Amino acid sequence: MRGNTFGKLFSLTTFGESHGEALGVVLDGVPANLAFSLEDLQKELDRRAPGKIAGTTTRSEPDKAEVLSGIFSSKTLGSPIAIIVRNTNQKSGDYEAWKDDYRPGHADQTTMAKFGIRDHRGGGRSSGRETLSRVIAGYFAGLIIPTVDVKANITKLGPFSGNVELNDDVTNYLKKLQTDGDSVGGKVSVTIKNLPAGLGEPAFDKLKADLAKAMLSIGAVVGFSYGLGEEFAHKTGKEISTDRKNFGGMEGGISNGEDLYFHLIFKPTSTVGDKATSGRHDPCIIPRALPVVEAMAKVVLADHFLRQRAYE
Amino acid sequence: MRGNTFGKLFSLTTFGESHGEALGVVLDGVPANLAFSLEDLQKELDRRAPGKIAGTTTRSEPDKAEVLSGIFSSKTLGSPIAIIVRNTNQKSGDYEAWKDDYRPGHADQTTMAKFGIRDHRGGGRSSGRETLSRVIAGYFAGLIIPTVDVKANITKLGPFSGNVELNDDVTNYLKKLQTDGDSVGGKVSVTIKNLPAGLGEPAFDKLKADLAKAMLSIGAVVGFSYGLGEEFAHKTGKEISTDRKNFGGMEGGISNGEDLYFHLIFKPTSTVGDKATSGRHDPCIIPRALPVVEAMAKVVLADHFLRQRAYE
Amino acid sequence: MRGNTFGKLFSLTTFGESHGEALGVVLDGVPANLAFSLEDLQKELDRRAPGKIAGTTTRSEPDKAEVLSGIFSSKTLGSPIAIIVRNTNQKSGDYEAWKDDYRPGHADQTTMAKFGIRDHRGGGRSSGRETLSRVIAGYFAGLIIPTVDVKANITKLGPFSGNVELNDDVTNYLKKLQTDGDSVGGKVSVTIKNLPAGLGEPAFDKLKADLAKAMLSIGAVVGFSYGLGEEFAHKTGKEISTDRKNFGGMEGGISNGEDLYFHLIFKPTSTVGDKATSGRHDPCIIPRALPVVEAMAKVVLADHFLRQRAYE
Amino acid sequence: MRGNTFGKLFSLTTFGESHGEALGVVLDGVPANLAFSLEDLQKELDRRAPGKIAGTTTRSEPDKAEVLSGIFSSKTLGSPIAIIVRNTNQKSGDYEAWKDDYRPGHADQTTMAKFGIRDHRGGGRSSGRETLSRVIAGYFAGLIIPTVDVKANITKLGPFSGNVELNDDVTNYLKKLQTDGDSVGGKVSVTIKNLPAGLGEPAFDKLKADLAKAMLSIGAVVGFSYGLGEEFAHKTGKEISTDRKNFGGMEGGISNGEDLYFHLIFKPTSTVGDKATSGRHDPCIIPRALPVVEAMAKVVLADHFLRQRAYE
Repeated sequence: MRGNTFGKLFSLTTFGESHGEALGVVLDGVPANLAFSLEDLQKELDRRAPGKIAGTTTRSEPDKAEVLSGIFSSKTLGSPIAIIVRNTNQKSGDYEAWKDDYRPGHADQTTMAKFGIRDHRGGGRSSGRETLSRVIAGYFAGLIIPTVDVKANITKLGPFSGNVELNDDVTNYLKKLQTDGDSVGGKVSVTIKNLPAGLGEPAFDKLKADLAKAMLSIGAVVGFSYGLGEEFAHKTGKEISTDRKNFGGMEGGISNGEDLYFHLIFKPTSTVGDKATSGRHDPCIIPRALPVVEAMAKVVLADHFLRQRAYE
Repeated sequence: MRGNTFGKLFSLTTFGESHGEALGVVLDGVPANLAFSLEDLQKELDRRAPGKIAGTTTRSEPDKAEVLSGIFSSKTLGSPIAIIVRNTNQKSGDYEAWKDDYRPGHADQTTMAKFGIRDHRGGGRSSGRETLSRVIAGYFAGLIIPTVDVKANITKLGPFSGNVELNDDVTNYLKKLQTDGDSVGGKVSVTIKNLPAGLGEPAFDKLKADLAKAMLSIGAVVGFSYGLGEEFAHKTGKEISTDRKNFGGMEGGISNGEDLYFHLIFKPTSTVGDKATSGRHDPCIIPRALPVVEAMAKVVLADHFLRQRAYE
Repeated sequence: MRGNTFGKLFSLTTFGESHGEALGVVLDGVPANLAFSLEDLQKELDRRAPGKIAGTTTRSEPDKAEVLSGIFSSKTLGSPIAIIVRNTNQKSGDYEAWKDDYRPGHADQTTMAKFGIRDHRGGGRSSGRETLSRVIAGYFAGLIIPTVDVKANITKLGPFSGNVELNDDVTNYLKKLQTDGDSVGGKVSVTIKNLPAGLGEPAFDKLKADLAKAMLSIGAVVGFSYGLGEEFAHKTGKEISTDRKNFGGMEGGISNGEDLYFHLIFKPTSTVGDKATSGRHDPCIIPRALPVVEAMAKVVLADHFLRQRAYE
Repeated sequence: MRGNTFGKLFSLTTFGESHGEALGVVLDGVPANLAFSLEDLQKELDRRAPGKIAGTTTRSEPDKAEVLSGIFSSKTLGSPIAIIVRNTNQKSGDYEAWKDDYRPGHADQTTMAKFGIRDHRGGGRSSGRETLSRVIAGYFAGLIIPTVDVKANITKLGPFSGNVELNDDVTNYLKKLQTDGDSVGGKVSVTIKNLPAGLGEPAFDKLKADLAKAMLSIGAVVGFSYGLGEEFAHKTGKEISTDRKNFGGMEGGISNGEDLYFHLIFKPTSTVGDKATSGRHDPCIIPRALPVVEAMAKVVLADHFLRQRAYE
């Protein structure tokens, strides 16, 4: 009820603070007898590691997955899968100075308002490190829907738009931002291929609603739209009803067998100024967020896939 | 699990097809001893009735709430509150012709893909009439958080933008659309005042995530953003971190005591052509959707209010 | 969260007070395209009607099911099924006298302690009439697992034990009890045949645990055991491990393909004295409880059947 | 949905197989700012350790709790608390012989029927070691309801009955059983003092129903009854309605402020013969089960305590 579980038939319960012993996840509802590869899982985790943007982040943070349960002889048992990642960079030290530093746009102040206590050594439960657990969950979701293809692409990053790649121009822009102690927002579009029709429920658990929740549960995401997105507001019914593809793969909240696509708005990380120049923070979180976005999409799809199967 | 229930401590379970006997809702988790007024409830229902736009909709559809349980001597008992609205316009008739009419953008095709059966006399479970149940729930949510003020405003409607009122220009535009058998999309912004800090949970049940789900669970809503919304994608961290108000009342997914605001994109209804000129369909659903949007926002807030109280 | 919903993939949400407008149930998770018969449903309801014991109960109480949603052309739509039964015997009248009458063994006092308000015209939400909703749910659960056979038998009723039938001896005993304004407890055993192996989950949702909860959620049930039941406490491991049948159809909390059987203890209804002689109360609730017990067993089995299917 | 989570506002999600890396639990819904003592928690764990009965069990199994998250400066943060216990006795070895050994009364066969795979090195997920997680949860539940007193006592153990203590007679009896490769069942009664009135819900989540589920979710428990228990079946309404205490502290499924008491039947463990003489199995599980029973009772009470608080 404190909202650390997501999903119904395929569910993830996550735990861990950024400067505690470990972060992790318990997955309930992974079918039995699926082949597990620690190597493949680790690759997914490595995709969200820092250092993706040449010269920007220097923090060394080897996020190593440790399987505690649910796997036997490289197969899923059908029992809950618990996996943890230890925090290795908890230095004892000068955290006392941060105790009363409430950063705008962060959870510092609201955590105090809500809980009356916080782990001031870092973002605590609201740290981006929590997304580790989601990436792990996404790997297992992928085992449930192996033929579904989920791909997130950057479509805007500061002044760059279109299909944004991390080329020299972009990298230099980001380095400059970091030197300035600044950060930047942007956009991401997700395309999902080979999704069967019939996923999603007619009322509250529309596929678009569960995707929106999943995406907005990611810290830096501030907007979600699907299909024509923003353009819908400028169109007439006659213009949109000519082509099913305009609806982004969902009609009545249920997948229609077409490619599914949706769009996200990211805010710039609000760690700015001196802290941001230290090399321990990303000037743009989006590149590292792509595997998190893909993971959460897979989690939603795998859950709805199992839900639908129960009734067929 | 078929997604007809929303909310945890304050939950609504809805039922009913557009051309069945009745639609309704069961509310579980309404605290006892709250004063109930059937008249006030009916007023909320009337706000979503057709005919809001002069000259556009001619369907007569008196949605009368009937209380079946949970109220005694005009007070809530703490037991589940069941309220129904009977469908009065189920004509026997010429529905057979609609059996194979799968309208793009509607749930017709996907309902068949999912269930293998549908009530072809109308939208069935995916009809806009389902939102009746949500408006009823919103009334009771309002009793739980009586001092919180929730207000939805149209900010774009076809070519009109700003604070769009239903003046002659807009009304004439809509009448013209209807004559043409067309429809139009737009935008809505919601402002919430007097919300206490501390609502929302740090991980999956962030307040922004639950609001996004609630809003995207409304049929015509295709996009959600909060705070600076789209602008976030164009801003740097330094620009946004100067003022807490930029974050739309939520930091780390938890309400921060400031005004909360978010924005919705609506697609045009995809009933176009001959059907749309019959006078039984709205050329723009947005005016009637405002009370639904407000209701769902209240539902989320009341639920989180009770959740937070459990732990204090 | 106020506990008016039971089940996960097949769930029932119930509502209604004994002297309110109506009682009812919303069923979520009934698969689409199942054949529905109002006549068959009504038969199940009639089984729990009073008057089963010749000469004991005189209350006329025709419980007529009214379908509000979820059925079209005698088939389930896959959308929520709402069914209500109107209360016909709400006399205006002399209820004021009962306002401060807190009967031991009833919910009168605890309802006040919990809610601070109660519908004093009868048992309110805690009335036996609430079980109407469960019988309706049991009918639909039966459609999901049509080959599973669930049968409840009275094995003790006051001084009578063995396979207790409502013969003259028993009927006369009950009439005498009623004349005396008294009531009596007893026992029921349930046998379930043709249940597939593999239902139930290894940890908290063991089949035995969910059956126990379902049974203890019935007002008059005070005890649950399965397999050898009470005898287990007197046996050694060597004595019980010779025959799988001793375990009542469940090992490790999961059905093993054998017949499943469990046992219930009923307390006497605690309405005694003048009220009980009025002919409106049963001297023994057990005969009318049998369809309720069978219904709740079916609900648990149908839910676990769907749950298992999701993962296969 | 695979049933590894229990509780709503205070919930535990457990994981781990008997011969995997670790067992553990994630607790969601522990209020913030409660004082945590690792020493006190370890004491609870030690109560369920083997070796309670002189001379019977020789397995050394130091169950050491390791806190991964949710605690900071010896206080609960309000974030999920993850605690694990590593398995130290996973010998590589002669497990292959056990692969096709399906023990009656154990989950071996049903696990295969359900999942099509099992960790044959031990009981896997269905091992008694899973109860470690429950004892940990019970400790935290106790922090939420510190003034409530929960005490489980053995009332029958093979031929011994009354208030059974582990004196020489009993111990010698158990040693003899172990030498014989046998085991024995029995009974336990639980008394709960200082419980506030008003806990439990009127319909499905009656306090008696949730206690029954919690207790039957323990592997060896085969029966639950409360109040007069078995005696209710032999009593008349007049006999029981004289004293509120007969109802075991619950009326209408809601706590009434009196002492709450209930009773459990345990089956003998079905590991018998050569395996049972090896000194690694208990001839009677009941002494070690007492802290598990108390823990699960506390879990139910803490959950209902928080639930009630949400609505007050």
